[in-house]
Amino acid sequence: MSRRLYDLAAADGTRFSPYCWRVKLALAHKNLDYETIPWHFTDKEAIAASGQGKVPVLLDGKTIVSDSQIIADYLERTYPNEESLFGDPPARALIMFVKDWTETILHPAIAAVVLGDVYRRLAPEDQPYFRQTREAMLKRSIEELDAGRPQALETLHATLKPLYRLLSTQPFIAGEAPNWADHLVFGALQWARLTSATPLLPENDPLLAWMGNVLSTYGLEGP
Amino acid sequence: MSRRLYDLAAADGTRFSPYCWRVKLALAHKNLDYETIPWHFTDKEAIAASGQGKVPVLLDGKTIVSDSQIIADYLERTYPNEESLFGDPPARALIMFVKDWTETILHPAIAAVVLGDVYRRLAPEDQPYFRQTREAMLKRSIEELDAGRPQALETLHATLKPLYRLLSTQPFIAGEAPNWADHLVFGALQWARLTSATPLLPENDPLLAWMGNVLSTYGLEGP
Repeated sequence: MSRRLYDLAAADGTRFSPYCWRVKLALAHKNLDYETIPWHFTDKEAIAASGQGKVPVLLDGKTIVSDSQIIADYLERTYPNEESLFGDPPARALIMFVKDWTETILHPAIAAVVLGDVYRRLAPEDQPYFRQTREAMLKRSIEELDAGRPQALETLHATLKPLYRLLSTQPFIAGEAPNWADHLVFGALQWARLTSATPLLPENDPLLAWMGNVLSTYGLEGP
Repeated sequence: MSRRLYDLAAADGTRFSPYCWRVKLALAHKNLDYETIPWHFTDKEAIAASGQGKVPVLLDGKTIVSDSQIIADYLERTYPNEESLFGDPPARALIMFVKDWTETILHPAIAAVVLGDVYRRLAPEDQPYFRQTREAMLKRSIEELDAGRPQALETLHATLKPLYRLLSTQPFIAGEAPNWADHLVFGALQWARLTSATPLLPENDPLLAWMGNVLSTYGLEGP
């Protein structure tokens, strides 16, 4: 198989990166086979050819693409005969609002809840790197994040309000079937689900049902 | 002219309702003439024929329609030869995320900042009604809201992050031209702009530029 994706991994192999998850769903959406290569924060050498130091990195034959949005745009352009990731151009523009909301609001709200748990799941050699970069990013120590978890969980639930309301009126963010808009938000919630030491949502939560429906659309199984 | 819109008015005539503004833009988008009828919170009798007690209420010939989303859907269905408010069906589904975010996150964030100012701008006969309903809704008194304004302003600015990021990469929420997604958010920010006793955004703020561009698309002038 000539398609490979470098995929962020915890010490136990759990693949939790929201950016990698959205790309895995985009590949499934376009019905493209691939294999994943587990990658750790400090494996900079392995992806040096991509010209930067973060995953996802996709190797598609001889093409190397990094950055989840650039990968999505690449897949859309390179495989135009597969199902569109964006619908028509106006729909793509609107998906960018979902993307910007996901990255500027939802990701920080999830990070405040789970970063301590993520830290404890990482390979030991990744922990110092993760602590240093994340503490600088959030301007709080892992221990302060742990202490603030109950408050952060309340904020996260408030942040999810528009999703609960939307998914009570339509099956997917994109409407009758999932697309990149769903992938973006799924990636975030999958990251939360796979890293949190305690369940963040009750078993019968509508967002979990929606996540299951996204996966089953592509013949995938959760979590 | 046979098209009339009941439009919420302050004591000085200022039309500040986000729900009315989005409908005025939707009418402009569809190039439909109308006149507005100023309406106050306590004028329940005037709109009794709509079967409920809130504006916007649109009289279109003999048809009475209330609720901004139902009005938008009505206009889209009744005037199919005018420019679509939603683009194609998948785009409409995505706009519903913008709507749900606007109503569950952005409106409460704006309310926490401006409700005291709104109260002071209302016709005296509207003030007791407004105080009672809004204090019950927000579970805080007008005076508590006033005291919490600096904190609420910080929260509002954090809430706007995805919009700043989106509008740094494309001219409108819907892409190259505004549609109902832009109208929804414009309504919220126009409400804030028209009621706040002090400017909420600096003069050169990109969101103000975007608001001006939305208005000028329809040959309207701000604020």
